[in-house]
Amino acid sequence: MSQENINSSADIVEPKEKTREQLMELCHTLADIFKTRAAKYDNEGSFPVENFEDLRTAGLLGMMVPREFGGWGCNFLTYSKALEILATGDASTSLAFNMHNITVGSLAEIPAAPTDDRRSGAINDFREWIFKEAVEGKKLFASAASEPGIGAHFSKLKSSYKRTEGGFILNGTKSFVSMAGYADYYVVAAKAAHSKSEQAAVSFLIVDRETPGSHMDNVWNVLGMRATSTNPVHFKDCFVPKERLYMASEGMALYKIAREPHWLAGGYSGVYLGIMTATYDFLVNFLKKKKLPGTDIPYSQEPVIQHQMGKFYTELTSARLAVYHAANLVDSARGSDEANAAIHHAKYLVSESGPKLAADAIRMCGASSISKFFPLERFYRDSRCGALQPAYSDDCLTYLGKAAFGANLKNPIETYW
Amino acid sequence: MSQENINSSADIVEPKEKTREQLMELCHTLADIFKTRAAKYDNEGSFPVENFEDLRTAGLLGMMVPREFGGWGCNFLTYSKALEILATGDASTSLAFNMHNITVGSLAEIPAAPTDDRRSGAINDFREWIFKEAVEGKKLFASAASEPGIGAHFSKLKSSYKRTEGGFILNGTKSFVSMAGYADYYVVAAKAAHSKSEQAAVSFLIVDRETPGSHMDNVWNVLGMRATSTNPVHFKDCFVPKERLYMASEGMALYKIAREPHWLAGGYSGVYLGIMTATYDFLVNFLKKKKLPGTDIPYSQEPVIQHQMGKFYTELTSARLAVYHAANLVDSARGSDEANAAIHHAKYLVSESGPKLAADAIRMCGASSISKFFPLERFYRDSRCGALQPAYSDDCLTYLGKAAFGANLKNPIETYW
Amino acid sequence: MSQENINSSADIVEPKEKTREQLMELCHTLADIFKTRAAKYDNEGSFPVENFEDLRTAGLLGMMVPREFGGWGCNFLTYSKALEILATGDASTSLAFNMHNITVGSLAEIPAAPTDDRRSGAINDFREWIFKEAVEGKKLFASAASEPGIGAHFSKLKSSYKRTEGGFILNGTKSFVSMAGYADYYVVAAKAAHSKSEQAAVSFLIVDRETPGSHMDNVWNVLGMRATSTNPVHFKDCFVPKERLYMASEGMALYKIAREPHWLAGGYSGVYLGIMTATYDFLVNFLKKKKLPGTDIPYSQEPVIQHQMGKFYTELTSARLAVYHAANLVDSARGSDEANAAIHHAKYLVSESGPKLAADAIRMCGASSISKFFPLERFYRDSRCGALQPAYSDDCLTYLGKAAFGANLKNPIETYW
Amino acid sequence: MSQENINSSADIVEPKEKTREQLMELCHTLADIFKTRAAKYDNEGSFPVENFEDLRTAGLLGMMVPREFGGWGCNFLTYSKALEILATGDASTSLAFNMHNITVGSLAEIPAAPTDDRRSGAINDFREWIFKEAVEGKKLFASAASEPGIGAHFSKLKSSYKRTEGGFILNGTKSFVSMAGYADYYVVAAKAAHSKSEQAAVSFLIVDRETPGSHMDNVWNVLGMRATSTNPVHFKDCFVPKERLYMASEGMALYKIAREPHWLAGGYSGVYLGIMTATYDFLVNFLKKKKLPGTDIPYSQEPVIQHQMGKFYTELTSARLAVYHAANLVDSARGSDEANAAIHHAKYLVSESGPKLAADAIRMCGASSISKFFPLERFYRDSRCGALQPAYSDDCLTYLGKAAFGANLKNPIETYW
Repeated sequence: MSQENINSSADIVEPKEKTREQLMELCHTLADIFKTRAAKYDNEGSFPVENFEDLRTAGLLGMMVPREFGGWGCNFLTYSKALEILATGDASTSLAFNMHNITVGSLAEIPAAPTDDRRSGAINDFREWIFKEAVEGKKLFASAASEPGIGAHFSKLKSSYKRTEGGFILNGTKSFVSMAGYADYYVVAAKAAHSKSEQAAVSFLIVDRETPGSHMDNVWNVLGMRATSTNPVHFKDCFVPKERLYMASEGMALYKIAREPHWLAGGYSGVYLGIMTATYDFLVNFLKKKKLPGTDIPYSQEPVIQHQMGKFYTELTSARLAVYHAANLVDSARGSDEANAAIHHAKYLVSESGPKLAADAIRMCGASSISKFFPLERFYRDSRCGALQPAYSDDCLTYLGKAAFGANLKNPIETYW
Repeated sequence: MSQENINSSADIVEPKEKTREQLMELCHTLADIFKTRAAKYDNEGSFPVENFEDLRTAGLLGMMVPREFGGWGCNFLTYSKALEILATGDASTSLAFNMHNITVGSLAEIPAAPTDDRRSGAINDFREWIFKEAVEGKKLFASAASEPGIGAHFSKLKSSYKRTEGGFILNGTKSFVSMAGYADYYVVAAKAAHSKSEQAAVSFLIVDRETPGSHMDNVWNVLGMRATSTNPVHFKDCFVPKERLYMASEGMALYKIAREPHWLAGGYSGVYLGIMTATYDFLVNFLKKKKLPGTDIPYSQEPVIQHQMGKFYTELTSARLAVYHAANLVDSARGSDEANAAIHHAKYLVSESGPKLAADAIRMCGASSISKFFPLERFYRDSRCGALQPAYSDDCLTYLGKAAFGANLKNPIETYW
Repeated sequence: MSQENINSSADIVEPKEKTREQLMELCHTLADIFKTRAAKYDNEGSFPVENFEDLRTAGLLGMMVPREFGGWGCNFLTYSKALEILATGDASTSLAFNMHNITVGSLAEIPAAPTDDRRSGAINDFREWIFKEAVEGKKLFASAASEPGIGAHFSKLKSSYKRTEGGFILNGTKSFVSMAGYADYYVVAAKAAHSKSEQAAVSFLIVDRETPGSHMDNVWNVLGMRATSTNPVHFKDCFVPKERLYMASEGMALYKIAREPHWLAGGYSGVYLGIMTATYDFLVNFLKKKKLPGTDIPYSQEPVIQHQMGKFYTELTSARLAVYHAANLVDSARGSDEANAAIHHAKYLVSESGPKLAADAIRMCGASSISKFFPLERFYRDSRCGALQPAYSDDCLTYLGKAAFGANLKNPIETYW
Repeated sequence: MSQENINSSADIVEPKEKTREQLMELCHTLADIFKTRAAKYDNEGSFPVENFEDLRTAGLLGMMVPREFGGWGCNFLTYSKALEILATGDASTSLAFNMHNITVGSLAEIPAAPTDDRRSGAINDFREWIFKEAVEGKKLFASAASEPGIGAHFSKLKSSYKRTEGGFILNGTKSFVSMAGYADYYVVAAKAAHSKSEQAAVSFLIVDRETPGSHMDNVWNVLGMRATSTNPVHFKDCFVPKERLYMASEGMALYKIAREPHWLAGGYSGVYLGIMTATYDFLVNFLKKKKLPGTDIPYSQEPVIQHQMGKFYTELTSARLAVYHAANLVDSARGSDEANAAIHHAKYLVSESGPKLAADAIRMCGASSISKFFPLERFYRDSRCGALQPAYSDDCLTYLGKAAFGANLKNPIETYW
């Protein structure tokens, strides 16, 4: 590629029509730009602010907003492919971006409330507000679900809120909040202090980043996915206006997650598939160039390498088929047993095949490939993080095993939440 | 199921309309019947003549014959699913049946010759004859490709034919001919004795089982797929009328196989997927019934078992997605690089995951499950045979590795044939 | 090997000195003879009476009897290697033979009682009787521990005995009794009917095969290890003289097994290692002879095959090191945590690597290797049975995991028994 | 551990007697100290100068020097265990330290030349000089074998030397020289420019770090083993006195390496085993402390975790047995086929199991474990480097496969060198 053809932020334009084809092209352009910055952000462990500026410019904060609200109206398959492409450029950015879309996307799936519902006004106002903030306000939403010692197990949460004049008072500490300090809003899962039931009353509150009583600790210094600012956020007596109650409804969180886990458990799959795709591309190119010792014959002609490359391909392809299949089922049969099983199958495969393939790629490429001059070592580090986000790998397997034996996994008690 | 509801051969009727739904239902019915006979044929190592009588009665010898010739006109996806279902009843039957469809199905894909082609008369006559033999004559075709010490490597074949008055004289020995002694015709791959090129001149001749000079050795006594009569067949100075030259064309075999390997390399995938499906069903049912020692709690509630069952499910699902994906691509983009890669991916997965899953199932079910009273031990034996039929597992990986590196695999020299 | 050099039963002589070297040589001789009969017994699923006649002739029923009682006085390492060698000839024979040695060997480890012990007379009489029966009487002892629905979980046994004049009355049904109908005695684990404790009172009674009230069902027709007559044995009001109480002590069984599991859990390891050894030898020889299609180049020179052969070797070697290491520890630190962990490590490896390697060998050797003309397909079947005998593979892993976390596995409640 | 009990460099004393027990204790002490510095050096990617100062103080630069020359006279098993222990503290240090011992240790194995050999004076002088430099001079030797595009394939080297007055003139560039810039001497493999044979004439020259014409590039910035200063070193017309020719003999290198690969291929195994040991210890402790979400029950009591922990243990134990077994064989049968196979088995296992186990540990420990606050993420990175040092994993397998088929691997042409 000649110097002049390299994309830069200046080239990014938000398309008017917002077709699927335009989205894919835009994501490829962004990935090419992100690629040039990935090593820096990874090295510093800093948040990729330039990348998110580009996502804003490209209008992608509204990727999941329905078209009638000015968004792209992506379905889950297109969304998964978009994340995959973005992750080939920078997995941290794609991962953090997914957290934003969890909030917007899960809301977009819920149809507008019928006007004869007494709460319809509040519900529709909430939807409209979120969509507008994403599209026009170009605001970022961060998911604040996990807690120290609890992970993302919704039924065990300790953060709680109580009702007050005009809204709620929120207290608690959230862990592993990606985009902490950079997102405009935190979407906080908390229990109603007045609820007696253990499971029913988990709600989501949308908390402005600048809310008094809220602050984050900047402690994210880890193996991989370093450019996500995944930090603890504390909420001490934070006031949340009642309009910021998710869907104007209390106690919906756990119920919804168990029935439709694709956002919380399946959003990541596109991201980690993207790392695998990038690993594959790197591997193929590297081995076509690297020569057998003391010869001009590329490694790509070596029988044992070809055989291993074939194995690599089968594992990548199995992961890809699983991710696309799951996304397709989310689009065609959201919440069905089949879709939910497919989500866990895909999440498991990308989480476990990803780091295995990156490890294989390092072995196949040899010592020179682990230099920070190349992205492969970052793929190896980033890919290992997939299993650490819900649904965790062991939870995926147990979920699928129970499903095979006929358990009712729409009952939260049977799941890992 | 009550006694009265058990299907028997007497219940089999060839449907008039031949829809996809009818086919699936018919295959399920047949599988239920085959299931009751599988242990006997396996034990004896004898050919399942009753099953093939049922397939004839059901009109399934025309499964791949175009609808305008009275067949079912299956596409490759439906065909793969049909084999899968039949194999849940008896894998040997499904495997042998696939050999018949290789000949009929690959022919059905070739459109009728245009009338301005000078050879069109002969070509169209040949197609019509095969289709009529399958549909009306209810004749079975066996594939005779492999040779001792050569396997299915078409470029190395030693069987040869020479031209004579009104046809050809064929000599050679074929190995691993399934349905030997039971098929009505052998479809023999042989080299033109007059050809100088090593690769170009492999042709297929359709040889009547009763042709003088032809005989089989009944020596099939093996680990698995025992009910297929997969035996050597010898041809000594056999006369083959010129009308029995496949597609009225010499020298097409290798070229076609390299470009469109789905029949020779991919037909098996449905069969072996069927064994995996049956293994899964057995496993689920067995572990729901088997009790933890000294308790009334089924194994299906044991955490370690659930976790392993989840792993089992992911491997089965990956294989299933691969097989259906490959079949879909054969239907939508036959002969494309993508379809051909998918075929090898699927073939590899079913060949290697199948026996692994059967072995896992035995471990999970315990000592009582290996009795010949249950089919699981047969699944374990049958499933190991997948890797031994083309494309062999190592060949699949090398093919995929070369493809990843950009080799031109339509050139037979780059493949394993 | 010329015709004259082939060993036959007529060549077998019991050595006078009974050295380790003589034993190894004798086992090799026997394995060569067993090899010639293995297919027949496997095919029939019949008990290898000729092989046991040879073992008797060779004096090997006293392999574990102390030298002062006329036996070979083998340690556990030598014993494991003897089983390995015998299993290269016929795994069923080696497996059944192990069941005999479980009784004799575990007794041999217990030193003679000091004369000031009030029970020493009875204890020493019992030891002497068993040793004499094995050495002079050439009697075979079968272990009857498992029960239907309970397996070898000693703490859950239902078989029970009560005291009567001069002995005990035994009732119960045992499953998976190898050598049923052929052993001279059954060593039956049963609970004292008068015991209130669940764990303490499991004892072993030595029951003469011809005892009135005892009979076996001949139903063994299974995947592998077919020549072991592993059948149910029923005991209805069987009288057992008090001299036939194992070690003249009640309630020792569970306690001893938990502390020193090498006989019940580790005896099998040599057998299954032997199948792996035989698989390796077959594979090496086969691939050195088999030619690449259409050439004179053996498969052993093919890079992808060499690479896979290397992988095969690493897995076999890991299993071998584990088995020998465990046996060494049994000899040097019997009952130590380290020895007990090593036993489970070895048992797990041979149980799971064995069938995997046999499956790999079939793939590497190709279609011609699964004929019953070769032993490979039997290795594939026999090897899968290892995981089904205690300690089951999952139990091994859980045992080792608990041990890693510091659990006290000498407490039966923490183990799988 | 109370503040006062923490070891520091001030506590290190070189023992007088130099027993095996003292060495193990000393290594444990050093490992404890190294542990406190590991994160810093890893983070900076800087050379652990403090650790090497401690190794000097402890007298460990003479670990492989024969006792009669004032060293510890370690055998290979003790050496491997020492590296393992040191690596539990800091794998980079252990790895770099191994490079020093390759030179000293391989020399120590060669007995003093008999006095009637005409070259014995020069040979014995060389040995004495090296041993004295290590013990009294406390000098560090770095191995400079690999070259860009060639790796450690000795038969393809491009570096060359020619004879000159009083010594040699050396030219060439070496890659992956650990301790570059910190070792006192480089041990450079180079070809005799005057040699016509491709294989015979590779010699080792000992080059003083400060030799004019020599310089290193400081570019080491990689995934793992970051604290080793593994950098390119250039030699331009460097004069090397003839006394610095290894063993006073030209052309021995390749011959020796092929016959006795334990130093170049097997020295690493102890290092990578040490990472595995440290990973295991971390995992056990972490899971005994980490609580199941919302409970006080540690993960160590969770059945699925115990089962996985058991699997982890089996893989670690297999690697450990392989490393110790190989080292034992080096000591008892150096250069034998059995020893050489064992070296490659061990090297393969630690190289491939190590990163797998570290990846498993991360999955089992969860998201909080990947913080740089813990060493686990470093283990994950460091462990992946094992396969990149000779013998590379694929070379190990091919070596073992060829050996299984009976190839003569003492012939360098059959190996990977």
